[in-house]
Amino acid sequence: MKSVPQPTIHRLVAYYRHLKRLAGNNDQTVICSKKLGHDVGTSSAQVRKDLSYFGEFGCKGVGYDIQGLKKSLEVILGLNRSWPVVLLGAGNLGRALINYQEFKKMRLEIVEVFDYDLDKIGNNVGNLVVKNVKNLDSIISRGIQIGILAVPVEEAQGVAERLVKVGIKAIWNFAPTPLNLPPDVIIYHEDLSSSLVGLVFYINQLETKVIKNL
Amino acid sequence: MKSVPQPTIHRLVAYYRHLKRLAGNNDQTVICSKKLGHDVGTSSAQVRKDLSYFGEFGCKGVGYDIQGLKKSLEVILGLNRSWPVVLLGAGNLGRALINYQEFKKMRLEIVEVFDYDLDKIGNNVGNLVVKNVKNLDSIISRGIQIGILAVPVEEAQGVAERLVKVGIKAIWNFAPTPLNLPPDVIIYHEDLSSSLVGLVFYINQLETKVIKNL
Repeated sequence: MKSVPQPTIHRLVAYYRHLKRLAGNNDQTVICSKKLGHDVGTSSAQVRKDLSYFGEFGCKGVGYDIQGLKKSLEVILGLNRSWPVVLLGAGNLGRALINYQEFKKMRLEIVEVFDYDLDKIGNNVGNLVVKNVKNLDSIISRGIQIGILAVPVEEAQGVAERLVKVGIKAIWNFAPTPLNLPPDVIIYHEDLSSSLVGLVFYINQLETKVIKNL
Repeated sequence: MKSVPQPTIHRLVAYYRHLKRLAGNNDQTVICSKKLGHDVGTSSAQVRKDLSYFGEFGCKGVGYDIQGLKKSLEVILGLNRSWPVVLLGAGNLGRALINYQEFKKMRLEIVEVFDYDLDKIGNNVGNLVVKNVKNLDSIISRGIQIGILAVPVEEAQGVAERLVKVGIKAIWNFAPTPLNLPPDVIIYHEDLSSSLVGLVFYINQLETKVIKNL
């Protein structure tokens, strides 16, 4: 299989979510790439290209079987099983992530939360109790492979190294700093400013064009 | 100018942030595309391609002048001025965004926060006081063009429409639901699950390969 670009994965998730919504409606059993693309804000060509990484789907002139494509995407994305996740950091962001309902709908569940802050350790967040990072070893037996870093920049590298030691293979990093980890650890940097700067960029372009056209 | 893909904007922000860091160090005045790419986790070809949307930068065989490229990116991204932002929703996510220090470093500042929840209205978050969404009109005179939606799914469409009425031209939507708004409003959907599913996808691929190779 060719290497799959990140934006394709993001769109596959959007298709999957939309198909899941449609699958609850018995009146509609088929959807064409044009409609699927439109509903999630992309083109029919993009839908077909994204799916082509994983084989052939749908019938020309007919479209995709909603239930069938939903199930295929579930297998492709790895969502046909549940995934336990460990969260590091029980601040506002950590609490928001614990309470984010969309994860559970995808069978992703934050099952442990750790912090260094003695004021936070022992507190309840959702159904979880915040534990001390010193006791991180306790998760080894749970077979957790995914960790979320929602800690301050200065703690990020140290905490990431501890996560790798307890068997974490993929890290979703919210701390705006690069991490230096073994190459087999997958790191996804969530840079919240860059989404906001993206909006600034487009508004700025519009304003600049307006000024040029005056 | 050709339309600039979203991933390019995200990388430009990463280059800009890195150059800002380097600009504080007087020993180094020039950086080559290979080093810049490496430092932010991409290739030299990608760096050159991303910058090529905006003209010619750097000298072949020499590299980019760090201060010069930083300033150019500042203008390209619209970060040579400050941008006030309004936030809708003062829950955990909203509070995390208000306290996220990276925005201010980019001259993006959440200057107003609104909520429907009477338990939250009047509370302090950071330096702000949570106001009632009913009084959203009060921001018209402030010339705010960017809004962040951190409200529950069922409130998202209604609140987004109110934002458009008070002059918002770009919306960063954290609610996992599509928004139906006039076509001149720019919407950026932040789908936190899709980042996490991206990690699941890669781990699942690794495991599947391991099983196939047994």
